[in-house]
Order: sequence, then C-alpha cells, then structure tokens
Amino acid sequence: MNYYGYANGKILRKNDIKVGIGDLVLLRGYGAFDYMRTYNGVPFRVNDYLERFEQSAKGMKLKLPLKRKEIIAVIYKLLKKNHASVEKDFGIRLLLTGGYSLDSYLPSLKPNLFILIEDLPQYPAWYSEKGIKLMLCEHKREMSRVKTINYLTAIHLADERRKQKAQDTLYFYEGKILETTRNNFFLFHGNTLVTSKENVLQGITRKAVLALAQERFKVEVRDVLKEELNMCSECFVTGTTRGITPVVQIDTKKIGKGKPGKNTKELLKMFEAKVAEECKVD
Amino acid sequence: MNYYGYANGKILRKNDIKVGIGDLVLLRGYGAFDYMRTYNGVPFRVNDYLERFEQSAKGMKLKLPLKRKEIIAVIYKLLKKNHASVEKDFGIRLLLTGGYSLDSYLPSLKPNLFILIEDLPQYPAWYSEKGIKLMLCEHKREMSRVKTINYLTAIHLADERRKQKAQDTLYFYEGKILETTRNNFFLFHGNTLVTSKENVLQGITRKAVLALAQERFKVEVRDVLKEELNMCSECFVTGTTRGITPVVQIDTKKIGKGKPGKNTKELLKMFEAKVAEECKVD
Repeated sequence: MNYYGYANGKILRKNDIKVGIGDLVLLRGYGAFDYMRTYNGVPFRVNDYLERFEQSAKGMKLKLPLKRKEIIAVIYKLLKKNHASVEKDFGIRLLLTGGYSLDSYLPSLKPNLFILIEDLPQYPAWYSEKGIKLMLCEHKREMSRVKTINYLTAIHLADERRKQKAQDTLYFYEGKILETTRNNFFLFHGNTLVTSKENVLQGITRKAVLALAQERFKVEVRDVLKEELNMCSECFVTGTTRGITPVVQIDTKKIGKGKPGKNTKELLKMFEAKVAEECKVD
Repeated sequence: MNYYGYANGKILRKNDIKVGIGDLVLLRGYGAFDYMRTYNGVPFRVNDYLERFEQSAKGMKLKLPLKRKEIIAVIYKLLKKNHASVEKDFGIRLLLTGGYSLDSYLPSLKPNLFILIEDLPQYPAWYSEKGIKLMLCEHKREMSRVKTINYLTAIHLADERRKQKAQDTLYFYEGKILETTRNNFFLFHGNTLVTSKENVLQGITRKAVLALAQERFKVEVRDVLKEELNMCSECFVTGTTRGITPVVQIDTKKIGKGKPGKNTKELLKMFEAKVAEECKVD
C-alpha cells in the first residue's frame, strides 16, 4: 500500500520516496535498520526498538539526524496520518543509510533517514497452532548485534527452505545454536528455558519473553550447543511480527511430541496478556 | 561528477537516477554488482567482467533484464556520451538490485539494472612505488564467489585501518589467507607465485595476472596458509582500479626487504604491456 512515510524531514507517499543512486546503501549495502509494530494501533515498546536502532547506528558509525523523541514524534504522526487504529495495525520500518559517499566507499557524515509504514506480514494460522519446521544452516551474521540490512544468506536460502518445506532457517556456528534469519530461538529442557547469549540480535520480543519467563521458569541465557536440539522438550522462536511461534521440527528431528509444548503455550498467553496491557486503547 | 548513466532502459544524469524505497536492495541489501574500467578510453576485458556479473546474478537468483551484447552496447554508448578518451578514463559500475519485492523479503522477478560511469579512484603514487601495508582480520565474505554489494565488514574496519596506518585489510579464515576487502592477494616464494583458490572473488585482474605469470614463473593456485606470510619473499594485491600493487608490510611483519620485490615489478611491467596492447587506440 502507498502509505505515508518519512524521508529526511519530509512526509511523502511511499511511492514517492526514492534514494539517489550514489547512496552507500545502494553501492555497498551499508545501512542500519529496525522494525517495530503496533498492537491495537499503539506502537509496542518504542523506546526499546529505538534504543537498539541507536546502537545499530553507533555500531555502523552512522550519525542519526534525529533525536529519539523526534523519531517518536514522527512515528506517531505517521500512524495518525495513515489511520492506525484498533482495527488496523502497522509495521514501522526505520532505515538509516550510509548516505551520499564521496568515494563510493566510506560513509557520509550525513546519513539518510527513512521511516516507512507497512502492512504487517500475515502468517498462516497453523504456524502458531501447529508449530513450524526449521532447517539448520551453519552461518553467523556479520556484526551480529547490529541490525543491518544484510540478509544475503537468509534470502539466498529461500529456495532451499521451500524444497525442505521449512518455514525458516536456524543458524548455528562452530557447534553453537544462534538464531533464525529474522527471529531469536529458545528451547525448553523441562521447565528450564534457554536461549543464546552471544552472536545473536538482541530481540525486543526476546527481551520481553525473558522478563516474563523469569516469573514462571528457570531461565538460562548462555551458549546453546547444537546437541541440545536432540534433548530439549520444546522449542519456539520470537520476533516482532511472529510474536512467539512454536517450533515442532528441526531438519528431520521432531521436537517433543511434534506439537507445540505446554510451556510454550503458557508463555504465549503471558506475552499476549502483556501486549494487551501495554497497548490498550483508553 | 554528474555523468550520464543507465537506469532500466533510460539514459539519465547520475543525479537523476533514483531507486524506489521498496527495492530489496534498500530493504535487505540484496544486489549484485560489478566494476570495470577503461584504459585509453577503451574498456578492458568487458566479456570477462560481464561473464562474472552474469554469474553473480545467477548466484543471487536474479534475472538480468539485458543480454550481454545489449549491456556492452549500453556501456559503449555511455562512454561516448561522457566523452571517454585516451585522456579520460572511467570506471563502469553495474548494479542489479533485488527489485520491488512484494513481501519486503523475497526478490522480485523484475530486478532493476543500473550502469554508472564514474571517475576512477586516484591512489597516491607511493602505493605502487613503495608498496602498501595490510592489516589482518579473520573474515570470509558471504557467498564469496559472488560479487554482492555487501561491504559491511570492509567499511566497518576503515577506522581500524586508519589507526594502524594500513591501506587495506587482508582477510583470513580458519588459518587460510583469502583476499583483501576489494582485491585478490598473491605471494611469491622465490620464483613460485601463489594465490588462494577457494572462498575468494574470481578477480579479472587476478585472471589476467595468472595467465601472464605462467609464461615466467611457477604458478600455484591453492589454499594459502597464514604461516606462509612469514616465509614468503614478495606479496602484492590485484584489482580493477589498483592494478598490481606491491605489499611490503602485513601487520607488524615486513615482507621481503620492505620494498616492492623484483618479480612483482616484472609482473607489473608485463601487465601494463598487456593492457596497452589490448586497449590501444587505432
């Protein structure tokens, strides 16, 4: 849809937002991004997402042209202009590019900032009801704590996922489980919840789920060995658009009984309640 | 400079070439690219570069909208329009993007093709006269045989290069020397020339240098171990804009006598003669 977005100080229809060919994001794939969403028309945990976006910009040595409260003001303005409501939720994409580079190689001192309003992706209902399948692939994202626009390997693997009838790819590296192409990965050993500490994106849903899980389970944030996939009782992934999605198969290996586990379902309920509480319309 | 370029069938001034924000190259850093140059106003080995560009497109599962001879016709048209001549050489950048994606994730069936004419980067004369310094970094490019736009790590390391007064970064991975951020790497053990076989970009200058070297030296294209840096007598890098550039230091280690080696100089002369022969003006 041709929603209103923000481009370097201007509010424009998406179809009118363009980037000059000299921007380093086009020449060298150099850009930081982030993606948040609304529930009931209200953006969820804006500050957490913007803190991460600021850290990504810093990690890429790009200067954000707006302060956090200015970005928040733009986001609320765009949501209003695009009629976000209890009935209509949106995804909010932030993109900070390397800017117009003098030598086609080093970032400009004036990065370009874009904020786009998008329809949320729709996943089939069975993803959360029956659980999804993941395929394994050895890979570690470059600058893994920074949310960059680089999804080369993720996109390249799409055909292989289709072939294997997997809904996502689970990255491991040097024997350790990391994350999927766009989500964090969790597993349960009985009532102990485990997720990877290093070399993964610091997901905002991950953070919310870890906080909720503390109330109810033993929680371990540490290296997760690949062999643990053979011993765990439940798995799930977390992400901004997918929320909590149960995982019931990894490659040929069934997880638990091949159905979403009870702890996962409980966490999902806790998460939904939390979201409803935080994003309620007065 | 605001040279004429090509954008999806149109010839436009560079400043008028823009990419819509929905292109996967902006949202996910998904694009193939290549870069060739003229000598004496004549493009060098167009077919080799375009063959590689076609392979990169294929590797990224992107359909090139033009056939090779159509791209060559565009390149010659642009060179003429921008007044390439014996006195004025250009760089020629090809960019094939993921196109306007329906789901902001999977490539479009209609990638966008851009061909840009650029001033060649100017390197200080001492680079080739005195030789450059490289710093080591453990890294392997994603999809290393494909020339993608992803230069995240390369650009991120720019500050560290400045600090170490190095002119480029030499990537190694699991004990094997690979390539620099934008060049292939060669070393001499006496009169034996060695360069990496796997996990490196198949450079066009690399190919030209290997062919010339066969006439004069023993040539080995194989895994190059990191320890060989301590034993080799000469090193150099090859690339489209840098040609053959001697390397005289890697981290704190001086190579040979800390000056460009005689075999490197000989190869450089052979390469210059070859270029003059192929790109001569009638």
